[in-house]
Amino acid sequence: MFGARCLLRALRSCSSAPCPRQRPAARVSVRGALGVQSANGERVKVQFRNISHQGWIRSIRSQKEVLFLHVNDGSSLESLQVVADSSFDSRELAFGSSVEVQGQLVKSPSKKQNVELKAEKIEVVGSCDAKAFPFKYKERHPLEYLRQYPHLRCRTNVLGSVLRVRSEATAAIHSFFKDSGFVHIHTPVITSNDCEGAGELFQVEPSSKIKVPEENFFNIPVFLTVSGQLHLEVMSGAFTQVFTFGPTFRAENSQSRRHLAEFYMVEAEISFLESLQDLMQVMESLFKTTAMTVLSNCPKDVELCHKFLAPGQKDRLEHMLKNNFLIISYTEAVEILKQASQNFTFTPEWGADLHTEHEKYLVKHCGDIPVFVINYPLVLKPFYMRDNEDGPQHTVAAVDLLVPGVGELFGGSLREERYHLLEQQLARLGLTEAYQWYLDLRRFGSVPHGGFGMGFERYLQCILGIDNIKDVIPFPRFTHSCLL
Amino acid sequence: MFGARCLLRALRSCSSAPCPRQRPAARVSVRGALGVQSANGERVKVQFRNISHQGWIRSIRSQKEVLFLHVNDGSSLESLQVVADSSFDSRELAFGSSVEVQGQLVKSPSKKQNVELKAEKIEVVGSCDAKAFPFKYKERHPLEYLRQYPHLRCRTNVLGSVLRVRSEATAAIHSFFKDSGFVHIHTPVITSNDCEGAGELFQVEPSSKIKVPEENFFNIPVFLTVSGQLHLEVMSGAFTQVFTFGPTFRAENSQSRRHLAEFYMVEAEISFLESLQDLMQVMESLFKTTAMTVLSNCPKDVELCHKFLAPGQKDRLEHMLKNNFLIISYTEAVEILKQASQNFTFTPEWGADLHTEHEKYLVKHCGDIPVFVINYPLVLKPFYMRDNEDGPQHTVAAVDLLVPGVGELFGGSLREERYHLLEQQLARLGLTEAYQWYLDLRRFGSVPHGGFGMGFERYLQCILGIDNIKDVIPFPRFTHSCLL
Repeated sequence: MFGARCLLRALRSCSSAPCPRQRPAARVSVRGALGVQSANGERVKVQFRNISHQGWIRSIRSQKEVLFLHVNDGSSLESLQVVADSSFDSRELAFGSSVEVQGQLVKSPSKKQNVELKAEKIEVVGSCDAKAFPFKYKERHPLEYLRQYPHLRCRTNVLGSVLRVRSEATAAIHSFFKDSGFVHIHTPVITSNDCEGAGELFQVEPSSKIKVPEENFFNIPVFLTVSGQLHLEVMSGAFTQVFTFGPTFRAENSQSRRHLAEFYMVEAEISFLESLQDLMQVMESLFKTTAMTVLSNCPKDVELCHKFLAPGQKDRLEHMLKNNFLIISYTEAVEILKQASQNFTFTPEWGADLHTEHEKYLVKHCGDIPVFVINYPLVLKPFYMRDNEDGPQHTVAAVDLLVPGVGELFGGSLREERYHLLEQQLARLGLTEAYQWYLDLRRFGSVPHGGFGMGFERYLQCILGIDNIKDVIPFPRFTHSCLL
Repeated sequence: MFGARCLLRALRSCSSAPCPRQRPAARVSVRGALGVQSANGERVKVQFRNISHQGWIRSIRSQKEVLFLHVNDGSSLESLQVVADSSFDSRELAFGSSVEVQGQLVKSPSKKQNVELKAEKIEVVGSCDAKAFPFKYKERHPLEYLRQYPHLRCRTNVLGSVLRVRSEATAAIHSFFKDSGFVHIHTPVITSNDCEGAGELFQVEPSSKIKVPEENFFNIPVFLTVSGQLHLEVMSGAFTQVFTFGPTFRAENSQSRRHLAEFYMVEAEISFLESLQDLMQVMESLFKTTAMTVLSNCPKDVELCHKFLAPGQKDRLEHMLKNNFLIISYTEAVEILKQASQNFTFTPEWGADLHTEHEKYLVKHCGDIPVFVINYPLVLKPFYMRDNEDGPQHTVAAVDLLVPGVGELFGGSLREERYHLLEQQLARLGLTEAYQWYLDLRRFGSVPHGGFGMGFERYLQCILGIDNIKDVIPFPRFTHSCLL
């Protein structure tokens, strides 16, 4: 039951000695079974007795004397082929049923798989009500259809693959930061700060059933976090490199395919960092290292998505991974847009936000390679970004990464570490009192630092080429309705 | 800037060739510098030129002609010793200031450290307003005092250690599950289900500033999750092994040292699992593997906590790690309590909940080893737990792990996978409609399964021996006031 490594160990010990019948069968996962190979990586002739495999039937094919089952346990996209005598056939042995099979794991004569399980015993663990089951054998259901079944859609090939990729990407991101010496911080979900006025907030209160002595449970109004940045900045006063990877929230009144009320963000903050260049290097490295780990650890899952959902995405992704990301300044970006032959709905102008149409054009213009846009107008950005003290077009050291297909994927900046400049900014905005603690950080051993955030779901969309963001989260909640 | 490994690589390349002056200094972290050793693990004579180190001054000692600084960058509890000519001394070179030092990394003559940095250049990056800085040089501040400075307390030795241990434990938990073949799932934070009526709920609504067309943003009332279990159960219908590790919430009206409004939970669900025995094996393995990884990766951090905050905890923890956890049934537990010479506030009785005083007694009685209590009365437990169909004392296959010092650490159970039994239970409770989706899971390829949850903060308390739960979270929020 315990993963490929242990199972293979179990298998090996089983094969090296005659296996007494009374010994319980060694469990094997699909991933474990299909990975059986010799030490030098070549496929070898295998035969393991007394093996058991559990899973759900994905296909069943009955020939004259032989029965072929494909049994999947979620450990990989592939299923384990079970070959059985046709006498095992029964009505309950059907698409969607759960089974336990015992027998011999042997080399498969077919080229489609390395091994197969020769069944000696098949037990139907749980039958499947085929009429009511919303997925039909051999049918390919559109993603919109699957979204109607949030509690069952993970049983389809495509959602299985997406969720395995999500899991792999999560692990790869943790490894990336750990290997680079970052300390992981759980920044608070319930918080009283709104970071930057970055988005619409959700408010949190005890459910009406609870009687509390005070008017407000927390004494002050509290919200769901929109970013862990300010909390990470606190930590960057003690640890040189910190990161967080957790849920963030926006009460955006939108039903779009690009927004979620609840989504995941990877955020990092680095001390003693003096240039956007150094920050962009970490961003690019995070993007590429994670993608390559995912591609190498679940190639079949990624392939499935590319093949059926996003033809061409494979090439697009490879193109992004093998090229250096580009860097242009906001001012250059505006110049490029002004000279474009295309007519934009929003006329590009220095000092105005870049819109989706602009981002798309810029990425295209840059050859469909991710492009960092740096040094934005001071007036467009929140108070904590570092003043470039330039002029007459006054900018701050901010950076956004625009990526083909998904638009803005990362946002980051150097933070204003200079006490007096920050004090002036806060005073101008009337925020001095609220942000006294933030000023404190600059009063006691201030350091130049910077950080970034990356939307995790957009990143997954970028790897898999999946258009609707609701299809890369485990439960396909809509902005306005929560199905579970 | 990029972790011990890269830095050592940088150092090595620097040492193998004469280092031209114009090359930028190779950055080294404390962890990287102190880890410099030969391939066979022995400490060697080192000398690396043109090294730079950044951090905050933890101590300063001025002798006649020499100045000793200890500079910490958060990569480890230890600081890097900087040795400088006394001419470098200045008023700004003080406790809490941030500095950048350049020079030669050399073997230290002292036995206290392997290496030290011979300074050729010292730059004060940010001075520290010593009068206003709440922490004083060489003073040991109590944890209660530190809690008053949520934005600064991470700069103390003890909180630095706690947070590094928290980060290591987080990574170790992810690795444990990944190595065992589990798929990681981000279960929703905002949800409409209350799992089991397990605790008081927080309700979520868009902040009053937002105008939404509907009365309720999500169409139905939504809450912050109290457990990801039911969502994991959905996933366990497609993946044999799944886990989640995220924030959970209880609007408990309590100021105790044992409860938090927001805390982290590790939850796992395993399919084709037929006995509590198998489930307990995973729980014990998670407990021990994670603890041993933490002990081996940050021994100094753990030692600091044990030494100054919890004398005796080292032995207690070792005792737990080297012994097999015990298993007793709820019925046996009640018998033990009834025969106790001790007088309890709540008289132990079959069918009643175990109270903290009972848990403490049981753990003591069992020799201060963690003890699994299994098979609880059906009436005490939520509907989804698997009926043992025994009698006359009707029980379910539930398990709690009681741990010395912290009480209940894990809770788990086999889940009722039998459609008709579950249907009856739901009908009896009037929940059939609300849990139709949950019944569905049993209608389509149902499998025996079980799972557990572990409170992450309590686990950290258990490793470190820290009494107040607010001291093992990054920001010491009180149940009723949110300081940041």
